[in-house]
Amino acid sequence: MQHRDTASRTRPRPDTGPGLPPAGGEALPPEDLSSRLRAQELQAGDLLARDLLAPYLHSLAADFLRSLRLHRESGQDPQGAAEAAEATRALRGAARRISGTLHTFRPLTDTGWADTLRGELAWLSGTLAREHAYAGRLNRLLEALNRLSGAGGGAGGGTPATPGARESAASRAQPGGTLTVGAARAGALLERQLTLARTRSHSAALQALGSSRFHAVADAVALLASDVPLGPAATAPAAEVLAPLAVGAEQRLKEAVAALPLGRAAHPYNAEALVHGLAATPTSEAQDAPWHQVRLLLRLHRYAQETFAAPAAPAGTCLAAQALDRHRDAAEAAGAAASAARTPRIAPATAYALGVLHADQRHEVEAARFAFQQVWQRTAATAP
Amino acid sequence: MQHRDTASRTRPRPDTGPGLPPAGGEALPPEDLSSRLRAQELQAGDLLARDLLAPYLHSLAADFLRSLRLHRESGQDPQGAAEAAEATRALRGAARRISGTLHTFRPLTDTGWADTLRGELAWLSGTLAREHAYAGRLNRLLEALNRLSGAGGGAGGGTPATPGARESAASRAQPGGTLTVGAARAGALLERQLTLARTRSHSAALQALGSSRFHAVADAVALLASDVPLGPAATAPAAEVLAPLAVGAEQRLKEAVAALPLGRAAHPYNAEALVHGLAATPTSEAQDAPWHQVRLLLRLHRYAQETFAAPAAPAGTCLAAQALDRHRDAAEAAGAAASAARTPRIAPATAYALGVLHADQRHEVEAARFAFQQVWQRTAATAP
Repeated sequence: MQHRDTASRTRPRPDTGPGLPPAGGEALPPEDLSSRLRAQELQAGDLLARDLLAPYLHSLAADFLRSLRLHRESGQDPQGAAEAAEATRALRGAARRISGTLHTFRPLTDTGWADTLRGELAWLSGTLAREHAYAGRLNRLLEALNRLSGAGGGAGGGTPATPGARESAASRAQPGGTLTVGAARAGALLERQLTLARTRSHSAALQALGSSRFHAVADAVALLASDVPLGPAATAPAAEVLAPLAVGAEQRLKEAVAALPLGRAAHPYNAEALVHGLAATPTSEAQDAPWHQVRLLLRLHRYAQETFAAPAAPAGTCLAAQALDRHRDAAEAAGAAASAARTPRIAPATAYALGVLHADQRHEVEAARFAFQQVWQRTAATAP
Repeated sequence: MQHRDTASRTRPRPDTGPGLPPAGGEALPPEDLSSRLRAQELQAGDLLARDLLAPYLHSLAADFLRSLRLHRESGQDPQGAAEAAEATRALRGAARRISGTLHTFRPLTDTGWADTLRGELAWLSGTLAREHAYAGRLNRLLEALNRLSGAGGGAGGGTPATPGARESAASRAQPGGTLTVGAARAGALLERQLTLARTRSHSAALQALGSSRFHAVADAVALLASDVPLGPAATAPAAEVLAPLAVGAEQRLKEAVAALPLGRAAHPYNAEALVHGLAATPTSEAQDAPWHQVRLLLRLHRYAQETFAAPAAPAGTCLAAQALDRHRDAAEAAGAAASAARTPRIAPATAYALGVLHADQRHEVEAARFAFQQVWQRTAATAP
């Protein structure tokens, strides 16, 4: 997912406000934002909040509508599955960014209108994300099974979520027939369960995109593309109203990170992620939740930075986001393996392979926490 | 196991040779040995090899015979299980040290006699070690199951290998009934299998200690306590014949460590130890073997140092040895979990728990490699 975000973020964004200095391509730590905002205040003291916010929302709305048109065109092309997936991905990215921007800068908008649109965008991106998530989860689990079976494994590249890719993931699970019966059966079981979930999500997404509810969202976004319903506060100088809201998003991120058990995560092989892995009431969800929350706050922080026309997020922020994406993906994959093991009447060898797979993914969770901690400490150390 | 080694090592060893400077209690890296040997050469240029070797072997033989007497006495005491286990442990330690010393300094001994005794001591310590190993493995696996079930877990302390401890380990597996059915059944299965193996080893050890083969070993060690069968080379100066052999032991250790994949081990969460964990022909044994070999070479190196009357092994060496003990224990525990999962007709939930347990122990293997690498690099960095 992070690759896509990077792609859409580095795409040049048109006219995001006059008088702004080029933000520089070098890696800046998140801590650097507030000082950058202050530098901008000095150079653009008379810039109004709406001069930054409206063009950014215009461009996001244009992204949204373009992706929607691409998606419709790809639907008429029988070869267009990959294009449709790509268009859906771009649509989700635009929806997430619009929603995040309306969230962070809510006091500057027509709040009633913004809240309604945010709710609808959350429904939309949630519905669209599911198919992709199931495909990615299956891919991750089959790759792990391959790695654990010594069957080549480390493909790494992350297959795109197209129907074609689904088949290739399945066939990749048995190169050279090196999988044991248990691993092969576990793979087949996961494939059956996650493909079913994926197919259902695909239908639900198609249904959503054809619904009158979706058409209302598209209409609202079309309005955003030409005329953003801002509140009276948006006429104040950006330095006075926009910048403090962006700093607030950054502050919430920092506070959430400070509450994470980073000291423990810094100690490799702390076996934290798998603790309670066999308990009757697994605590992994409670344990993972603060990290998932930081992932969302980091995303909001990145979107708030984009409002200020930063052409690319700082490298540290990208790496941190990637670590948290990996954390989320591994946690969900571990959950899927555990859940597959509860399927009635599976063979013991299948259950054993799923147990190994579950533990492997929980260790990936722990590894992702370690990686996040490393990136974050390094970022904090280089902050001015 | 390392605790016991430490205990017997720090016990003052009588009259290990005249004219030797106190070796100093501070932590010295293994790399320091050769320079220390050179320092001793200067101060004890006329010390003969037998002046160092014979007293050391005398004291080891005395340890052996004392442990044997303690073991016999504990056998007559119905409460003496713990004493018997302690005596067996000391007996094994003495047997290992005698054997290691005869190995490293073989050219200085009556080689025919030494080779025969070494073979017999290997048989003896192998036979005696098995019971303890099974008890330790069961303990480690039940503790891991507790930890994975969030049932208190981190007992850590390592229960001594007595029958009483066996029962307490079993009862500790269900405090508060927090274990899931799968974890509880996995624990019961492991307990059944490893207790059976342990009981058989106990009988085999008792039988061995009563055999005429053992009495011949004890007679040979009794000879060692009074008169060590050394070869003509032992009359040469220690600096010329003993020191080079000790340096050779150190050199073999260093070469074996240099051949380890330390670069990979230095990278936490490399997922190396579990790779091929589900393969039809697991490669873990081939992967673990070089580490087990380093463990043995490190032990030989430590024993060679003891010949020079070092009162305590350098802290780095102890930590390295502990990491390799942990590596060995976790590797064998992982194997036991995998092997238990191949029991016919087990429930899927049991197999799942055993899969999680296997992966957990393989990650312990990886963690131990990481720990060893850390200790070794630190030791190498502080070496003169």
